[in-house]
Amino acid sequence: MTKLYVIKIGGHIIDDEKKLSVFLKEFASIDDKKILVHGGGKLATRIAEQLKIPQRVVEGRRITDEETLKIVTMVYGGYINKSIVAQLQAANCNAIGLCGADGDAVLAHKRAHPVIDYGFVGDVDAINTGLLQNLLEQNITIVLAPITHNQQGQLLNTNADTIAQEVAKAMSNLYQVELIYSFEKKGVLLDVNDESTAVRKLNRAYYEQLKQPAGSAPGGGSKIVAGMLPKLDNAFAALKSGVKKVIIGKAEDLKELIAGTAGTTIVDE
Amino acid sequence: MTKLYVIKIGGHIIDDEKKLSVFLKEFASIDDKKILVHGGGKLATRIAEQLKIPQRVVEGRRITDEETLKIVTMVYGGYINKSIVAQLQAANCNAIGLCGADGDAVLAHKRAHPVIDYGFVGDVDAINTGLLQNLLEQNITIVLAPITHNQQGQLLNTNADTIAQEVAKAMSNLYQVELIYSFEKKGVLLDVNDESTAVRKLNRAYYEQLKQPAGSAPGGGSKIVAGMLPKLDNAFAALKSGVKKVIIGKAEDLKELIAGTAGTTIVDE
Repeated sequence: MTKLYVIKIGGHIIDDEKKLSVFLKEFASIDDKKILVHGGGKLATRIAEQLKIPQRVVEGRRITDEETLKIVTMVYGGYINKSIVAQLQAANCNAIGLCGADGDAVLAHKRAHPVIDYGFVGDVDAINTGLLQNLLEQNITIVLAPITHNQQGQLLNTNADTIAQEVAKAMSNLYQVELIYSFEKKGVLLDVNDESTAVRKLNRAYYEQLKQPAGSAPGGGSKIVAGMLPKLDNAFAALKSGVKKVIIGKAEDLKELIAGTAGTTIVDE
Repeated sequence: MTKLYVIKIGGHIIDDEKKLSVFLKEFASIDDKKILVHGGGKLATRIAEQLKIPQRVVEGRRITDEETLKIVTMVYGGYINKSIVAQLQAANCNAIGLCGADGDAVLAHKRAHPVIDYGFVGDVDAINTGLLQNLLEQNITIVLAPITHNQQGQLLNTNADTIAQEVAKAMSNLYQVELIYSFEKKGVLLDVNDESTAVRKLNRAYYEQLKQPAGSAPGGGSKIVAGMLPKLDNAFAALKSGVKKVIIGKAEDLKELIAGTAGTTIVDE
């Protein structure tokens, strides 16, 4: 099977014009087929503030009301998505920018929660693998914005990590998929304050071992910082669904992440 | 050759949520292959005002500075484009929204003017007919935003009328193209204040006749309002380049425009 990279970049790289530009040049130079999933960054929040649209956060989650949905559709689906595509074109990478409504690429439903109304937030139902494959087979690189739709005319705000994972899982029937999550850290750290403690390779047994409360450790908790655990559970779930490799690390290290000389590689063995 | 409709909608319909929704349902029900080119509407101006970005107009033309380009990319390429696509999906029309950078769909260069610096305004150089054909042949309807790029990483603001015309011309090698321009009036009017005076069919001989200064008419000028003349010159140019028919009329009359029972049909005979 042909190799396919599904690479997710988050806010810390999108907000930094210079770093983003370097990243996109390196991304463009990947010879294999590739899909870039981007998150939001701070621009949407800044514009919401300037337009005096109050942002409501409940239990750490932003509520997407109608006006906020308009802004994220403009900023994620318009400005960020098209700027990335134009830069990739300049680097000789023929890219096409899509949101989930385009060609019904990512179908979702409005999140139903017994207590909290998250507003126009979508949970993914299906990926249109045929559309993505057709574009990839024409050597077109896909740039996905974290906006989905419900096929009934409603756009929905969707977590970019989730989109990357669902795309990687769905495409693993057609390609040998490697999923790269980029974030602020060098990888999964044994000491969250020390970048040199990044784990190079993490399999399920080692993960279980690291998750065990270490009685002798200060605080006696897991060796891995709590916020990483859902990311890693998702990574192992992706591997179970056919994704070949999940790599977590810094976007600035893209070349090394691909070469396997930086970041944490998560394998199902 | 297979028939292809290239249909341009302007601000007056985009700004009216209800009219737009009715239009999109009628557009979705066209069985033939189709490309929708949309303009901007007032939302970009409103957001620029709210963000306190001054809008400069020189000789009736808006200057696209860096901040204005950001806003039109957000509003045209993001909000309007994706909202239209989501509504078409809901009407069982599988659509994909593109700007000119996506798949290098519309290549342009920054306008060079000896006196006025229009800023980031693009004049069209080329249409990627292969990309558009491939999507159309998969029964995907294309929704084009009036944002182009120069293949060097620069997005550019481009007139939607021009994009529609260039797309229609370029695609006429591959399809039997009918180009529909929708605007506020019922068609080419003999009396600009009387919608019942719409010309039903306009060929070159009749156009030349109508353009003649009518000595007896009040003011002694052309029978056609001056603002229409460039539109009509462009229409005849499109016909010369292989477009089969150009129809000018109201978006609200889409069905009738297609059936040939409303609007002005311009033919090269």
